[in-house]
Amino acid sequence: MTEPRTNGKRLWQSLEEMAKIGPGVAGGSRRLALTDEDKAGRDLFCDWAREAGCEISVDAIGNIFARRPGSDADAEPVMAGSHLDTQPTGGKFDGVFGVLSALEAVRSLNDHGIATRRPVEVAVWTNEEGSRYQPAMMGSGVFTGEMKLEDIYGMTDAAGLRLEDELERIGYKGGLPAAPRPIHAYLEAHIEQGPVLEADGKEIGIVTGIQGIKWFKGVLGGFNAHAGTTPMEVRRDPLVGAGRMIDAIDRVTRAFRPDAVSTVGEFSVEPGSINVINAEVRFSLDLRCPEDAALIELEGKVRAACEEIAGEMGLALSLEEIWFSPATAFTPNVVDAVEQSALKLGYSARRIVSGAGHDARYLADICPSGMIFIPCKDGVSHNEAEHIEPEQAEAGANVLFHTILTLAGN
Amino acid sequence: MTEPRTNGKRLWQSLEEMAKIGPGVAGGSRRLALTDEDKAGRDLFCDWAREAGCEISVDAIGNIFARRPGSDADAEPVMAGSHLDTQPTGGKFDGVFGVLSALEAVRSLNDHGIATRRPVEVAVWTNEEGSRYQPAMMGSGVFTGEMKLEDIYGMTDAAGLRLEDELERIGYKGGLPAAPRPIHAYLEAHIEQGPVLEADGKEIGIVTGIQGIKWFKGVLGGFNAHAGTTPMEVRRDPLVGAGRMIDAIDRVTRAFRPDAVSTVGEFSVEPGSINVINAEVRFSLDLRCPEDAALIELEGKVRAACEEIAGEMGLALSLEEIWFSPATAFTPNVVDAVEQSALKLGYSARRIVSGAGHDARYLADICPSGMIFIPCKDGVSHNEAEHIEPEQAEAGANVLFHTILTLAGN
Repeated sequence: MTEPRTNGKRLWQSLEEMAKIGPGVAGGSRRLALTDEDKAGRDLFCDWAREAGCEISVDAIGNIFARRPGSDADAEPVMAGSHLDTQPTGGKFDGVFGVLSALEAVRSLNDHGIATRRPVEVAVWTNEEGSRYQPAMMGSGVFTGEMKLEDIYGMTDAAGLRLEDELERIGYKGGLPAAPRPIHAYLEAHIEQGPVLEADGKEIGIVTGIQGIKWFKGVLGGFNAHAGTTPMEVRRDPLVGAGRMIDAIDRVTRAFRPDAVSTVGEFSVEPGSINVINAEVRFSLDLRCPEDAALIELEGKVRAACEEIAGEMGLALSLEEIWFSPATAFTPNVVDAVEQSALKLGYSARRIVSGAGHDARYLADICPSGMIFIPCKDGVSHNEAEHIEPEQAEAGANVLFHTILTLAGN
Repeated sequence: MTEPRTNGKRLWQSLEEMAKIGPGVAGGSRRLALTDEDKAGRDLFCDWAREAGCEISVDAIGNIFARRPGSDADAEPVMAGSHLDTQPTGGKFDGVFGVLSALEAVRSLNDHGIATRRPVEVAVWTNEEGSRYQPAMMGSGVFTGEMKLEDIYGMTDAAGLRLEDELERIGYKGGLPAAPRPIHAYLEAHIEQGPVLEADGKEIGIVTGIQGIKWFKGVLGGFNAHAGTTPMEVRRDPLVGAGRMIDAIDRVTRAFRPDAVSTVGEFSVEPGSINVINAEVRFSLDLRCPEDAALIELEGKVRAACEEIAGEMGLALSLEEIWFSPATAFTPNVVDAVEQSALKLGYSARRIVSGAGHDARYLADICPSGMIFIPCKDGVSHNEAEHIEPEQAEAGANVLFHTILTLAGN
């Protein structure tokens, strides 16, 4: 039996069409949440969904749900989606691929004349990127009860514009409550935003979960002195200490597990003068691991290494946790359904843990959830150079389509 | 025989009196070059020097020479001095001690009725600090021919005021050419501005020279990527590379020689975001060593260590030399005269190399030169907290006085 497929050409055309709205300056997209460009993107999606026979509803935080009815009117829906907003200099596929591959699945159900038992809903979550309004993943955060609607309404952008006002202005402050409701399963297709699938030559990533993340703020104090007159043996140079710590954090993480990552991203020195030994160094630390217990164990090893260095060098170290996002394990039957779909369609696939956050992170708190990754060129994302090939998009849409078929039943 | 001494109480009173001109906000001084405060400090010095029987002359760059005649009218003078300008939040002794201890030596010659064969001149060099007008050590630089008078006249401060105009305004654009002339020897007493003498319990530092200095600008390029989705084994993180380099530079310097120093002072990362692996790191490197050959050897070791790390990690390293100030060796007979004076007076003393630059750096190019260091509290300088005790000042002045006696003859 030949398995039904999505229409890869139509999907690619839709991706290209959407990318014309809020074009970037270097081939990517600039469609910041709740701007005129976001409105135009949403409007285009709604037109397409209506043409595909869907009923549109919008909730109080602007999340859009395009529903294709099922044969059982009382059945909980299978939902698939992602987001249409982009980074300021974002790519054409981050988020957009998840929304339009879900729409393509609905269109393909129509093409093949397939009636599912459960309704199928395509979801567009508001402001996943968090570029214009913080925090990120706001639409799914409010929908799942992770964030309070009133708090989020009051957020302002850099120009002082309130989020609620902007939502009304673009016509997407909807009547539906932004609150959890029964969902049979949530699926999100997404570009990997990392290099693993490409390096491994795999077409599909079966996402088993999202890494736990801890962020820390580090301050390392030493003794400010003259670079020329202070012998090495009496120095307490916090930049030398920080250099050793960054090296140690890197080595500890590599030795810990192959799927753990650590990054020092922010880094500044004070006073930062060419002929002065610095007084203080400030840095951020981002630790990620697929399981919380392992993440906490890694944190312990990193702390021990840093404290040993600070002690040896007579430096004052403070390493304060500023954020903890627990690890998410996706639901086994949803993960298995993704795997079976990839297998059935003959795609090369591997299990993978998402290193980045996604709307599926919050959805997993209220319903069985899973994700499908496709490779992206050089792992580059959050960049206008973000790139995928049409056949990669088609493979992801086909796996999403078949996973929906499995979960929505007939 | 009891050796004649300076008057420590008078010296201390003069230091305190001078510090009242341009007082700082935290117990130090703020007497920036060619300001009204600088003029007032210069005027006070000239009054005191005239009272001590000196003849004042001022050269075209504002250097002041207060001359006490010798018995041989044709003999080349022995000159001692330093500077009266301070850092914006400077101490009361940096520079000032060198000028006023030289003045105290002249006063003591008078007290003891000593006629020297050679004239003794007290020099006040213009703008040693370089805080208001760059470069630093400007008066001695022009005097010794290291800098061109016309270039320096055209320099402007942050408010756009030309140096020549400010020199005229305060009445210190003198008639004497700012050009080398025969000098038998130049002496400069100064606070150490480092912790060595204090830690070693020595009252006097017999300065054998000034370290050679090389400054470098480092740029280290890696690959900008997502902190969550990029496995450790594929990263090319320039901050981890820079951390290893800073550690390696520190270790290489310590292993090289106890009197070599290396400092990374400026340091910045790009883009510097908490969840992004940086693309680029920029840093400064300051290397110092008492001899140029050793400095160049150290540079080679540091470069080799950094290049090895860059090579292993796939990072692009550029380490560009931006300044080289060759090492200065003071004249053996002057250094010996300082040592003999300290010995004769019973002070604990040690040889030391200056880590910082001083006017003596330029004077050494045109005449036999040497320096005398006294300890300062915790090695702190260029700070209003800079501190010395009256007896420390007196010890330095006594050694300067006796070194002048030796060199000026009778």
